[in-house]
Amino acid sequence: MTATTRSEHDLLGDRDVPAEAYWGVHTLRATENFPITGMPISAYPHLIDALAAVKEAAALANEELGLLDSKKAAAIVEACREIRDGRLHDQFVVDVVQGGAGTSTNMNANEVVANRALELLGHAKGEYGFLHPNEDVNLGQSTNDVYPTAVKIATVFAVRGLLDAMSVLQDTFALKAVEFRDVLKMGRTQLQDAVPMTLGQEFSAYAVMLDEDRARLAEAVQLIHEINLGATAIGTGLNAPAGYAEAARRHLAAITGLPLVTAANLVEATQDCGAFVQMSGVLKRIAVKLSKSCNDLRLLSSGPRAGLGEINLPPVQAGSSIMPGKVNPVIPEVVNQVAFEVIGNDVTITMAAEAGQLQLNAFEPIILHSLSESITHLQSACLTLAERCVAGITANTEALRTSVENSIGLVTALNPHIGYTAATDIAKEALATGRGVAELVLEKGLLPAETLAALLRPEVLAGSGHSPA
Amino acid sequence: MTATTRSEHDLLGDRDVPAEAYWGVHTLRATENFPITGMPISAYPHLIDALAAVKEAAALANEELGLLDSKKAAAIVEACREIRDGRLHDQFVVDVVQGGAGTSTNMNANEVVANRALELLGHAKGEYGFLHPNEDVNLGQSTNDVYPTAVKIATVFAVRGLLDAMSVLQDTFALKAVEFRDVLKMGRTQLQDAVPMTLGQEFSAYAVMLDEDRARLAEAVQLIHEINLGATAIGTGLNAPAGYAEAARRHLAAITGLPLVTAANLVEATQDCGAFVQMSGVLKRIAVKLSKSCNDLRLLSSGPRAGLGEINLPPVQAGSSIMPGKVNPVIPEVVNQVAFEVIGNDVTITMAAEAGQLQLNAFEPIILHSLSESITHLQSACLTLAERCVAGITANTEALRTSVENSIGLVTALNPHIGYTAATDIAKEALATGRGVAELVLEKGLLPAETLAALLRPEVLAGSGHSPA
Amino acid sequence: MTATTRSEHDLLGDRDVPAEAYWGVHTLRATENFPITGMPISAYPHLIDALAAVKEAAALANEELGLLDSKKAAAIVEACREIRDGRLHDQFVVDVVQGGAGTSTNMNANEVVANRALELLGHAKGEYGFLHPNEDVNLGQSTNDVYPTAVKIATVFAVRGLLDAMSVLQDTFALKAVEFRDVLKMGRTQLQDAVPMTLGQEFSAYAVMLDEDRARLAEAVQLIHEINLGATAIGTGLNAPAGYAEAARRHLAAITGLPLVTAANLVEATQDCGAFVQMSGVLKRIAVKLSKSCNDLRLLSSGPRAGLGEINLPPVQAGSSIMPGKVNPVIPEVVNQVAFEVIGNDVTITMAAEAGQLQLNAFEPIILHSLSESITHLQSACLTLAERCVAGITANTEALRTSVENSIGLVTALNPHIGYTAATDIAKEALATGRGVAELVLEKGLLPAETLAALLRPEVLAGSGHSPA
Amino acid sequence: MTATTRSEHDLLGDRDVPAEAYWGVHTLRATENFPITGMPISAYPHLIDALAAVKEAAALANEELGLLDSKKAAAIVEACREIRDGRLHDQFVVDVVQGGAGTSTNMNANEVVANRALELLGHAKGEYGFLHPNEDVNLGQSTNDVYPTAVKIATVFAVRGLLDAMSVLQDTFALKAVEFRDVLKMGRTQLQDAVPMTLGQEFSAYAVMLDEDRARLAEAVQLIHEINLGATAIGTGLNAPAGYAEAARRHLAAITGLPLVTAANLVEATQDCGAFVQMSGVLKRIAVKLSKSCNDLRLLSSGPRAGLGEINLPPVQAGSSIMPGKVNPVIPEVVNQVAFEVIGNDVTITMAAEAGQLQLNAFEPIILHSLSESITHLQSACLTLAERCVAGITANTEALRTSVENSIGLVTALNPHIGYTAATDIAKEALATGRGVAELVLEKGLLPAETLAALLRPEVLAGSGHSPA
Repeated sequence: MTATTRSEHDLLGDRDVPAEAYWGVHTLRATENFPITGMPISAYPHLIDALAAVKEAAALANEELGLLDSKKAAAIVEACREIRDGRLHDQFVVDVVQGGAGTSTNMNANEVVANRALELLGHAKGEYGFLHPNEDVNLGQSTNDVYPTAVKIATVFAVRGLLDAMSVLQDTFALKAVEFRDVLKMGRTQLQDAVPMTLGQEFSAYAVMLDEDRARLAEAVQLIHEINLGATAIGTGLNAPAGYAEAARRHLAAITGLPLVTAANLVEATQDCGAFVQMSGVLKRIAVKLSKSCNDLRLLSSGPRAGLGEINLPPVQAGSSIMPGKVNPVIPEVVNQVAFEVIGNDVTITMAAEAGQLQLNAFEPIILHSLSESITHLQSACLTLAERCVAGITANTEALRTSVENSIGLVTALNPHIGYTAATDIAKEALATGRGVAELVLEKGLLPAETLAALLRPEVLAGSGHSPA
Repeated sequence: MTATTRSEHDLLGDRDVPAEAYWGVHTLRATENFPITGMPISAYPHLIDALAAVKEAAALANEELGLLDSKKAAAIVEACREIRDGRLHDQFVVDVVQGGAGTSTNMNANEVVANRALELLGHAKGEYGFLHPNEDVNLGQSTNDVYPTAVKIATVFAVRGLLDAMSVLQDTFALKAVEFRDVLKMGRTQLQDAVPMTLGQEFSAYAVMLDEDRARLAEAVQLIHEINLGATAIGTGLNAPAGYAEAARRHLAAITGLPLVTAANLVEATQDCGAFVQMSGVLKRIAVKLSKSCNDLRLLSSGPRAGLGEINLPPVQAGSSIMPGKVNPVIPEVVNQVAFEVIGNDVTITMAAEAGQLQLNAFEPIILHSLSESITHLQSACLTLAERCVAGITANTEALRTSVENSIGLVTALNPHIGYTAATDIAKEALATGRGVAELVLEKGLLPAETLAALLRPEVLAGSGHSPA
Repeated sequence: MTATTRSEHDLLGDRDVPAEAYWGVHTLRATENFPITGMPISAYPHLIDALAAVKEAAALANEELGLLDSKKAAAIVEACREIRDGRLHDQFVVDVVQGGAGTSTNMNANEVVANRALELLGHAKGEYGFLHPNEDVNLGQSTNDVYPTAVKIATVFAVRGLLDAMSVLQDTFALKAVEFRDVLKMGRTQLQDAVPMTLGQEFSAYAVMLDEDRARLAEAVQLIHEINLGATAIGTGLNAPAGYAEAARRHLAAITGLPLVTAANLVEATQDCGAFVQMSGVLKRIAVKLSKSCNDLRLLSSGPRAGLGEINLPPVQAGSSIMPGKVNPVIPEVVNQVAFEVIGNDVTITMAAEAGQLQLNAFEPIILHSLSESITHLQSACLTLAERCVAGITANTEALRTSVENSIGLVTALNPHIGYTAATDIAKEALATGRGVAELVLEKGLLPAETLAALLRPEVLAGSGHSPA
Repeated sequence: MTATTRSEHDLLGDRDVPAEAYWGVHTLRATENFPITGMPISAYPHLIDALAAVKEAAALANEELGLLDSKKAAAIVEACREIRDGRLHDQFVVDVVQGGAGTSTNMNANEVVANRALELLGHAKGEYGFLHPNEDVNLGQSTNDVYPTAVKIATVFAVRGLLDAMSVLQDTFALKAVEFRDVLKMGRTQLQDAVPMTLGQEFSAYAVMLDEDRARLAEAVQLIHEINLGATAIGTGLNAPAGYAEAARRHLAAITGLPLVTAANLVEATQDCGAFVQMSGVLKRIAVKLSKSCNDLRLLSSGPRAGLGEINLPPVQAGSSIMPGKVNPVIPEVVNQVAFEVIGNDVTITMAAEAGQLQLNAFEPIILHSLSESITHLQSACLTLAERCVAGITANTEALRTSVENSIGLVTALNPHIGYTAATDIAKEALATGRGVAELVLEKGLLPAETLAALLRPEVLAGSGHSPA
């Protein structure tokens, strides 16, 4: 009969762990110490893959430097590759929000890799005399360089997904901008009728915003490529031999395909969370603009009869349990909420970064958690918005044109020709009487009819030079 | 010829201060150390008055306990009363944002009171042998009990002004609610036409929100009446004799007219900023709802032709340097901005409160600054909104009634009588054809004409039971 | 052979749902529309129970008013009770972050209750002709009153758990305060040595903070007992007959055991998120103080040799993968991180509340999500901190006493007896020479030995009047 | 006798303005409408100068395009130059927090420039028939392009000041890093003793952080060089003739010496506040790291006897009104507070940016206000920190060395040589007995004495490769 547990030992004594578990005593204690969110780190597969990549790179570097024998190194490498192939992820069980600067995450990885490597070497799990989680898998490493390095790599891969989703949304807006390029409408400032524009120009702005935000995000992710692997505990590289940092970086770059660089000052790099704050700040910027765009979509589609009614969002579900036939802008609404979450997460990340002390920031786990949430939720939000909303938007072209013809804002176009003071009088009279601007201008003989007509041509009003290309 | 400076001495050595200055060497160094905002503490007159009240109460308590001779006490009291009468405020010159947990503010007060008291006693400024800023004016006190006590008293008085301003705004909304009690309009959920209501109900909601917020603010300010005077440095009351805390509290309550109580645990009270966090949280709540109300006012008054056009805000200035006749909702807009500021200040206060360490929070000056700004700006915003905007709002009654009659949302009222499914079909047909709900119901014989008429009476639709009293 | 799907119909057409699903077409569309967090609403069991309670109360009220026949009512009630007994929770599948102001959550509840009730009545799932999700289960209701009411009830129950956890932590701190009541130590202000106190006083302050925070939380949760059930779509109570709101409230109070009250102004209550903002503000206050307390614990236990070393936290796991024997303050650290999360969530909730428009706030789902997370994580954090950290703290009593005897801060106690100026000189000399304050005072003959001894007795220094009772 | 007022006219009627005022009726109404902060826009001299630069550039462009006669243009240009020379700043009186998207600021500028230009042309103030604020000074412009352009130029100049101040602080830290390059000390992670390092490495990290932050700030300010001048009301360029945008940009670049570029999509550029959000995000990053550095300085200088006592901050003022001889870290404390303010301002800016609607963000005034405050306060904070604190820091070199020799953390250096498990046992024994690590290793014969000595050499421990260059 097989034992259902095995005994493991640590600083605090002996503990039984389930015999089949790849994780060990350190992981066990961590699961007991941090019953906070109920969400294990396996919920972030990019992080698990990144941890495995770091362990693999370290093993290869250690082997190269003669610190780890080739059999052990090969087993560690093989175990890491299995993890990166998606196996054993369920063994990463510590809570994503944890004390200890990520130590429990690193320990969890060391133990899973060690036990899988032991199996590959023909040993039983827990026979650490043959291959040790801390002395072999963690050789030349510290949580303080492993964890931030893994978080950065995970973030780079997550951001790629977001960049792609933003592209999809940008393209969807851009297609609409072309579709609506000739739809004349009133532009508004401060919610008051301003001057004419095209609906295409309006949608083009959303596409351009996303384009700029993608550029900023690409810049911010660049900063995340700077790692501190080789820093060990505090950046002095204690216990990491000469050449280790460079070898580990080289292997890690090869494994991940990322142009990683080692920070010039490892003491600084080990305590600094600036790149995460910057990343979160850019995510906040994206959230702000997505939210603004969704506010606009909800406003422009307000109605169907007592609203602006300029555009129609595609119905995606019944809107009300009590009001028959009601359809609501639920997709923009969910995007707004993701934006609010991202903005709140930025405050969390800011506080966590500020709270770092001396040579280390102990609060990186909540930074990882908040950052991951912001990135993946924004990605879902962009795709959902593109596919379930923007792609199906239609315009109420006739009503829009009529609103321009009836507008008082037309008078602005006449301003240079009749003067601000006369134009103000026309506007006041139009507002008071409900009459049209053009009619009043002609009646008062302020402009000849043909001049007036020329000034009010759509391409003049909407500034053809700025239409979407 | 009179000297233009006098020499004063402190821990760091000798310094010349202007002969006519009531402040002394400690204040001088503080002005040099904190060239941050350029805003002196005299910008918060409530704080200066509160400091003078504390110094006066302490002098009376010390005299009563036989620690301060009556001549000195009388001079200190007289100096404090002059300050509370509005004199010497220009002598409070240290920057409102300062290090040192408010020490420089307390030192500034000690010096001004001492020098004015010296004059009253017939001595020259700076002759501290006769009456000393620290040994006499500050007797039995520490910055760590004086400063938070003064900040609390200042806050109580500032909040009174805000409560009054909120009352004015509430009353203004309530008057409009009565004025608009019979104006039928479409209610909206998620910016989509929902079911009918009255404009009076809509404005009544704004009044009720303010009423609730005032109740919360009154509760929060209650917590601010708990002071730690007598705690001295860290709450152990070192150097404050038995009976001092109670005597000082009694005098301070009498001077200010406030029902002050001494905290039960002075160690806790000296390090705790919870009451400020709570106060700021309530200010944030007020800001959130004011901002929401202003968002609504801007939306309801959008137009004049391509917007909702339900109400008209009184024009208070020309809206555009280029668009003649344009009038913008500038008053709600400025209130929105104040709200954003208050919400940002809450984060500042939160961080400052969290950063307290061990027996003291050194960051109370930024808490004072942010809290004062939030309170006084909200007060201005409420009054401005009441007087320059809400009081002059008019309704476009006819257009509103028509929008109800044309609405698809009417179908909800028929839901219990024809069923959700049939009602959904009517709604869809009305939307597709542009026809009216009532017309379709009659045509399909779903309800008799008189039943339909009864169901669509305004008082039924708007739920007369909930109209403003 | 049984069919694996059934067909359902809504505004947008027909869709197949799995035959065994209790949820229906509205839920199906919602799961497709909101692939945001991957976390279904079943993750919040309090919410599911609260929804069932509301549906049960509504059915009973409708039966009482003769609007729902007794057989249907009985089946709905039975289905709701099963849910409140913990069954069918897995049928609540819509994403917790969703557009539509909670409509999908309400629809999900209506469908599950209807289909379970149909089964209880002997019908097949989907046979809505016998009992309809919207026309029967949702009778007299709207998402706009059901959802906020359910969120409030769920919040009340969640907060009870938090209050209990805070009590446990408070008691744990209070026990330590008694244990450490005679441990003399240096108090600090601004991280600089100040004056003596006892470690008991220090721990007592943490207990008192929690006591005050519990009082504030209890007040805030009181506000949450005000519900808007009966408001229907926008607060006008359209389609809810006279007496319905009161009957539903009465039944809901009986079912939940909560003293619920109906808001006086239902239009206001339906659009207002003030009570949630207030609740989150109080949670933030709690977070701020918990974080401050944990910062202190980490600071006081810093070392073991190059830190303050005043107290020892119980080791709960090995602290480092590279530094043998290192033990870290991982429990306070995880509490800090929860606090940062709560503070970020407050910003999210603030933005969501501010974004409400006109008669409804469409963003309540993110408010629910953030609030639930804040409450439950704080609860876990308090319990973990109490049990795995505070309960096992020990003091380094001897070292603490020595630090008092060697301190320069002792001079403050002599201040009233030798004057601020002389005391300053003693302090400067002690600092420069490394000598002791008492020794210098005696040497200079400033005080007789016996007076000095009396002034430096522990109970005088630490202010016995303020020791923990 | 001269009249004390002159009458001016606007949309709302006639008003008297003081005869000597250069501002006019629009400014008058704005001062009445926005009694919010009491701080006039003249408090931001960079903004006033930038407004004058924009008005000058527009006049030159209009003249070049034949839209403005040369006499008028010359007078406007001359008036603008006077303003940029620092004159007439007191005429910019509207409140910095204002509704209307900056219209009142633009109107104030138009009126001051017009009235000064009128004087230069030999006319009286108010004789707008000869030169009109809106028709001539504002020709081809709108608030919606003038205001954001001016805010951007003002921000660029303000940021230059901040960059310089950051350089000063960086250099000061770097000098200290060199001074302390051989001072061995214990590094800490999670406030627990970790492994040795030098104090020079510690200070070097602060310098490197600033260097990186300066790089990020320089990138962010680059984005601010993109302007929307020529967009007029909503970006369509209505009323701005072909060539105007380019001519105005060219003149503005020449006047300011800045490499300004015109945004490719003016509709987007007119509504987008992304560059301000990004700028504020970077300021927040700077604040986070400055605050962290100041937290460290306060911690390292804690004492003088019951703290870490590693470094001494120069005393800059007496620290306490009650505790003689106490000196507090007031300079780092004030920097912390500025950081909290900047972090709060970021939330304000975020909310203001998110609240923009359709073609314009009406809330740019609060963005300007918050951004200016953040930049200028950070600048003061950096200079104050450099000059009044960091430059005078001294190290307690002997105590630091002793703490390394006594530390348990030394065992980490032996880890690769004796193994994690044996090292853990040594650490436990050292902690329990109070004995030294080296002593125990020798006693147990784990390493020969000479090997041990070699491993514990300072340059090995502190990783000489990472010392400051």
